Amino acid sequence: MTLQNDLILRAARSEAVPRTPVWMMRQAGRYLPEYRALRSEDEFFTVCRTPELAAEVTLQPIERFPLDAAIIFSDILVVPQALGMDVDMVRGKGPVFTDPLESPDELARLVEPDVESALGYVADAIQLTVERLAGRVPLIGFCGAPWTLAAYMIEGSGSKSFSRARSWLYRHPDELVGLLDRLANVSIEYLDMQIRAGANLLQVFDSWAGMLGPREFERFALPTLQRIRREIGQRHPDVPVVVFAKGAHYALNDLAEAGFNVVSLDWTMDPRQARKEVGPNVALQGNLDPALLYAEPEVIRARVRDMLAAFGPVGHIANLGHGMHPDHNPDHAGAFIDAVHEVSEELIAVAAA
Amino acid sequence: MTLQNDLILRAARSEAVPRTPVWMMRQAGRYLPEYRALRSEDEFFTVCRTPELAAEVTLQPIERFPLDAAIIFSDILVVPQALGMDVDMVRGKGPVFTDPLESPDELARLVEPDVESALGYVADAIQLTVERLAGRVPLIGFCGAPWTLAAYMIEGSGSKSFSRARSWLYRHPDELVGLLDRLANVSIEYLDMQIRAGANLLQVFDSWAGMLGPREFERFALPTLQRIRREIGQRHPDVPVVVFAKGAHYALNDLAEAGFNVVSLDWTMDPRQARKEVGPNVALQGNLDPALLYAEPEVIRARVRDMLAAFGPVGHIANLGHGMHPDHNPDHAGAFIDAVHEVSEELIAVAAA
Repeated sequence: MTLQNDLILRAARSEAVPRTPVWMMRQAGRYLPEYRALRSEDEFFTVCRTPELAAEVTLQPIERFPLDAAIIFSDILVVPQALGMDVDMVRGKGPVFTDPLESPDELARLVEPDVESALGYVADAIQLTVERLAGRVPLIGFCGAPWTLAAYMIEGSGSKSFSRARSWLYRHPDELVGLLDRLANVSIEYLDMQIRAGANLLQVFDSWAGMLGPREFERFALPTLQRIRREIGQRHPDVPVVVFAKGAHYALNDLAEAGFNVVSLDWTMDPRQARKEVGPNVALQGNLDPALLYAEPEVIRARVRDMLAAFGPVGHIANLGHGMHPDHNPDHAGAFIDAVHEVSEELIAVAAA
Repeated sequence: MTLQNDLILRAARSEAVPRTPVWMMRQAGRYLPEYRALRSEDEFFTVCRTPELAAEVTLQPIERFPLDAAIIFSDILVVPQALGMDVDMVRGKGPVFTDPLESPDELARLVEPDVESALGYVADAIQLTVERLAGRVPLIGFCGAPWTLAAYMIEGSGSKSFSRARSWLYRHPDELVGLLDRLANVSIEYLDMQIRAGANLLQVFDSWAGMLGPREFERFALPTLQRIRREIGQRHPDVPVVVFAKGAHYALNDLAEAGFNVVSLDWTMDPRQARKEVGPNVALQGNLDPALLYAEPEVIRARVRDMLAAFGPVGHIANLGHGMHPDHNPDHAGAFIDAVHEVSEELIAVAAA
């Protein structure tokens, strides 16, 4: 399928673009009334597991906004599910594991999944979505980083401190590394399958990287991120991969050196400083504070202008610095997207003149 | 009262010390059985408001461990209480406001407190504690930074995203600045009162600074921190002040330039990098991952050695990078304290030789 809009792929490869591409983390989600209408009938993971529904939800923001990419509707925790763990999505609380890993003894409970059969529904959803996108924009596939998956599997839910998961860093480091390696193995097969199903770009979400100090990041997060990037690169050298290690402000250079095409920034990062750390050949993604979407459109537009100026015209994928909130106003998301397109076109034309 | 151990005051002023002083954030708290025994009878804020109980709890870790400072048992949210807000401490959930500030209209609900009468119980607790400490170690007084207090007052409780509070950054910036200024005014009087009651050192906790991007920190956090430091400095030039802006990895230099004697680091910060940013004349505090206390004592000791080497022998107050957890083993806290003392004495002796 020929893509009519490949701006995000060009930006991911740090090639020149006529305007900055934009998408939003959690762009398909509860802030959209059409999503809430659908979700009132089906449970979250039922939507993920039903290709027809997952494709429909994936396309909702694409039908509504001139976004430059779709991202397959799914959740990073489908991988722990494939390893045999039960997870429910509880409204207002997020994911809840029925039986988190209380101790390393319980690692024996985990199965070695056959990815094609355990997660084949994601491949089906991707195929269906690509068909319906009909080349309008690229489709992003994704997975959670091993550390973030392990943190959920041990903690059992989101947490302010992740103290159970962090206790393994110091009490059970070898067993934790073993778990991370198993998760990396599955994640590599899972991303590979997503590419074969039609994903054009990948993102690895290390949402809880910021719970780690620099030394623990180096030991417990970076090695599997490096390995995932390397093995996907060997199998699919042309597919760009984005990494988002939220809160790991100290790791930008390491992530760039790991071979990721794009390093995604949370909203606490200064884009100019980040550019210094990743060098000229790695693209950056981000990074407006998602809470900015509570502001009036003219405030959003002014901040988009500042953001675009800070990132510069080449090697930037515009995004928020984290996922959208369920109480965001869709019109403000639209104002954000329009502002990125209009202002970046203006700035890039000026820079070229 | 002459202090028998003033190591922490000397370290805060970046003077040479024979061994590195150490205390722990939340060193008085639920991880101690003697605290749980007392709290089973009294509510959290009852303990804060009852000088006899607050003094007893403050002294519990001092009786048990060779700590180099006590910190008055209280909570940053006594200031919002003094402004007329109801806050309860709910076990397993943390603070919960009965009626958070839903909109700027509700700012009119807040009263202008007379600090001496509204918070006099803290001064009484400090006086009683100083008397009972009898010069053994200095006593730390503290308050919350205006941004962190405002975040709780708007959000109503701790939160993973603080999305209501962050919406004010962009929807109601002027009203938020007004609230921050009022909180700063009260905080200055409150800290002043604590010094007059006998506190030897102060710490300002900006626990939710990390929810702010660099620009929002500069507008909504830094100005009141600067003003608090300046006004306390004018009234009490000899009392060192520590600032802990958790997660504000981009702000270390600004905090040093604001005149704080000590910049406290969370566990995601590299001590050597932090030293470069604050310069040679500002002390640093921290910063082992609190989760390290789940490890065995020999693991704790090895990490303490690395930490002490990274901070160097001058201008360092050893601490964790955040508060202790309720499920920490007191013996491991003891191992941490002993390791700081023994290893720092060894390293400082070697450096002097």
